[in-house]
Amino acid sequence: MDIKALTFDVFGTVVDWRSSIIREGQLLTDGFGYKVDWAEFADRWRAGYAPAMHRVRTGELPWTKIDDLHRMILDDLVLQFGLGDMSEDELVEFNKVWHRLTPWSDSVAGLTRLKRQFVIATLSNGNVSLLVNMAKYGDLPWDVIFSAESFGHYKPDPDTYVGSAELLGLSPSEVMMVAAHPGDLRAAADSGLKTAYVSRPLEGGPNHKSENVSEGDFDVVADDFIDLAEKLGV
Amino acid sequence: MDIKALTFDVFGTVVDWRSSIIREGQLLTDGFGYKVDWAEFADRWRAGYAPAMHRVRTGELPWTKIDDLHRMILDDLVLQFGLGDMSEDELVEFNKVWHRLTPWSDSVAGLTRLKRQFVIATLSNGNVSLLVNMAKYGDLPWDVIFSAESFGHYKPDPDTYVGSAELLGLSPSEVMMVAAHPGDLRAAADSGLKTAYVSRPLEGGPNHKSENVSEGDFDVVADDFIDLAEKLGV
Repeated sequence: MDIKALTFDVFGTVVDWRSSIIREGQLLTDGFGYKVDWAEFADRWRAGYAPAMHRVRTGELPWTKIDDLHRMILDDLVLQFGLGDMSEDELVEFNKVWHRLTPWSDSVAGLTRLKRQFVIATLSNGNVSLLVNMAKYGDLPWDVIFSAESFGHYKPDPDTYVGSAELLGLSPSEVMMVAAHPGDLRAAADSGLKTAYVSRPLEGGPNHKSENVSEGDFDVVADDFIDLAEKLGV
Repeated sequence: MDIKALTFDVFGTVVDWRSSIIREGQLLTDGFGYKVDWAEFADRWRAGYAPAMHRVRTGELPWTKIDDLHRMILDDLVLQFGLGDMSEDELVEFNKVWHRLTPWSDSVAGLTRLKRQFVIATLSNGNVSLLVNMAKYGDLPWDVIFSAESFGHYKPDPDTYVGSAELLGLSPSEVMMVAAHPGDLRAAADSGLKTAYVSRPLEGGPNHKSENVSEGDFDVVADDFIDLAEKLGV
């Protein structure tokens, strides 16, 4: 393999969205005195995201960035969870929890090591400002930020994978997509990219069962970013 | 001023294109035994860039990235300078000297300091891969890379300035354009951005006279990036 660049899925692969939302939610309602099942809230917020994106991908909605899709879902959830008293300022601020997601414990060390040998890029459905703010918040050392917003297409549309390789001046086979989600990797492979699966068993919480992945399903199967660096010889 | 992000012109403002090209050119012809006036070569390569971009901006050429515009100009220059024997591989490699331009001596220290308080972004006519490779070559600690290529428009088209602010989720007045070129700054100001002029008296070589700039022509007038950091209170 002659890999020059790694493109990373972000939500779930680099950062732990679930724990981050639960923690900020608890801080919010501790202040207010409400009682909310924040794990359930986090899971439902995340679950609303694929159908919302699908409406954009199929043309039912015009291009809408993730911040705005997250807000549409949040507006429903606050009513369902008895948080309808939140002010507009509080909603704007809480919606930005997605800009403040905490990296998995190996993410910064692994990316820093991988950056020595490869161009490391996001390839995320998050919008640019979300990814920039998250990188500053979590010290993620990206060389370059690619977002669905840069392409006007959401993953798994091929334009995102092929477009990233083009912007890097590389052929698709010189780029490796890194993700904890087999569907993202299969779409990247269909566009000619190499693929690395990284296991994130806690992404969906302690009781969530991930899709089974075997050695050989992808070009690399790794336990975390440190293991990925080892396996890529960095 | 409530500045959240700084967008930087790159060629001449962050990196010293002229000395970098002269140095690589000399190494090239030292090896071959040719004698070439590399200062003249560098100046003519750079001088070809504005008219080439203008052909794209006016629609005479379809969208063409800077790597390809540089190559068009280079193909003429090698004939004029008696370098017509260069192989295709050598031309491809030499054209990428623009990916290996050396930062001014204050650039990395100044950017590192400014990054503590602001989002720091390129806003350059260089294509994305050029800017990514240059950042790795010169250790430029960008938070995010914006390129004319991201917008399909070259500076000074307003789409580039306004588009950068939009991608950052900021209003134009929260973004400050930093450049050593008054024309770039005046166009940014017309789009509502704040402006910082940084003096780079050696950009055009020791005998080149820059346009006069006075305190008050822009929001900040600074001697270099360290002085800019001081004046922005970082």
